[in-house]
Amino acid sequence: MVTQPARPAPDTSRRSERSRRAIYEAALSLVAETGYPKTTIEGIAARAGVGKQTIYRWWGSKADVLLEAFLDLGEQAAEAAGHTPDPLPDTGDLAADLKAVLRATVDELLDPRFEAPARALTAEGVVNEPLGREFVAKLLEPQLQLYVDRLRSAQRAGQLRPGIDPRIALELFVSPLAQRWLQYTGPISYDYTDTLVDYALYGLAPR
Amino acid sequence: MVTQPARPAPDTSRRSERSRRAIYEAALSLVAETGYPKTTIEGIAARAGVGKQTIYRWWGSKADVLLEAFLDLGEQAAEAAGHTPDPLPDTGDLAADLKAVLRATVDELLDPRFEAPARALTAEGVVNEPLGREFVAKLLEPQLQLYVDRLRSAQRAGQLRPGIDPRIALELFVSPLAQRWLQYTGPISYDYTDTLVDYALYGLAPR
Repeated sequence: MVTQPARPAPDTSRRSERSRRAIYEAALSLVAETGYPKTTIEGIAARAGVGKQTIYRWWGSKADVLLEAFLDLGEQAAEAAGHTPDPLPDTGDLAADLKAVLRATVDELLDPRFEAPARALTAEGVVNEPLGREFVAKLLEPQLQLYVDRLRSAQRAGQLRPGIDPRIALELFVSPLAQRWLQYTGPISYDYTDTLVDYALYGLAPR
Repeated sequence: MVTQPARPAPDTSRRSERSRRAIYEAALSLVAETGYPKTTIEGIAARAGVGKQTIYRWWGSKADVLLEAFLDLGEQAAEAAGHTPDPLPDTGDLAADLKAVLRATVDELLDPRFEAPARALTAEGVVNEPLGREFVAKLLEPQLQLYVDRLRSAQRAGQLRPGIDPRIALELFVSPLAQRWLQYTGPISYDYTDTLVDYALYGLAPR
């Protein structure tokens, strides 16, 4: 009979899962309350009711904890909304699909549970290039790639000009919403994002 | 003979101008080095070699000093480039004019003298809504209104669809550049901004 490798008892893994979730929640609430620079592993451990070593066993740095907590928040939100985060809808009507996704993004940006930690992490990324690039690579770019996929499918269907680079094209509707949200350059609404999609697809010059 | 109002002697106003410039430079370099939260009126005064009261006599808060220092930096840059900041060129060729302005913006965004304080102030505005709104009202929105004016002129010339809202339209090329710069979501180049203008004017969908 072969010896089985040691496995955590069900109790242990339930406890681990509870700790992991408590750490995520502590990290997100602390960064929202005090900002990124003042958030520490010690502070997260204290608020989560775990030892500092528990955090260091699972994550290399406070940036890692926060990025994972944030990824997890996005996954939870997607589950709560009854869908997995990917891919974008593809009904054959490009304008309608993009409008639907951007309306969902408007809701997410205005959700206080998401907004405070997202602002704190984004602000830090603006002045801390390595964190900014990690935030983009792990969180933002995978979401933008879903738009790339949807735009490629539209290109195959003849609904997007053949020479268009989808990675740049998506910025015409994604970046204006991001800038209004981040910099308070204007109000955010479904009407606004619908307009962005129409302008981007059909152009500003007369047809 | 009418009594003349008291005026500062030429010496005094030269000294004031020298102090004002030293304060601006101290404010910009400190915020670039230590970030907005750690920049103080005391620190600015010490680095500028003036008394704290000199700063309080002219400005109400550190945000005011920084915003004015930043406005002054923009004016100096415009003077050095041999033009006043407004209005946008209007040669009758909308695409060419927008491309020229965005290429100049690319140069400005990549100028280290501009970049560090701009990042520090923008990052603070992301998590400090009153400062963010003041930054937009005093600095960003006046620049965006130059685009609005240029787009209205294009609309009168029949080069922009009549129903288009110029204040939203400009975001199709301005916001993507802002997001790439702020969040490191992609490289910035003249080719890139030229492409944004072409996509925005002629649309992503086939004509």
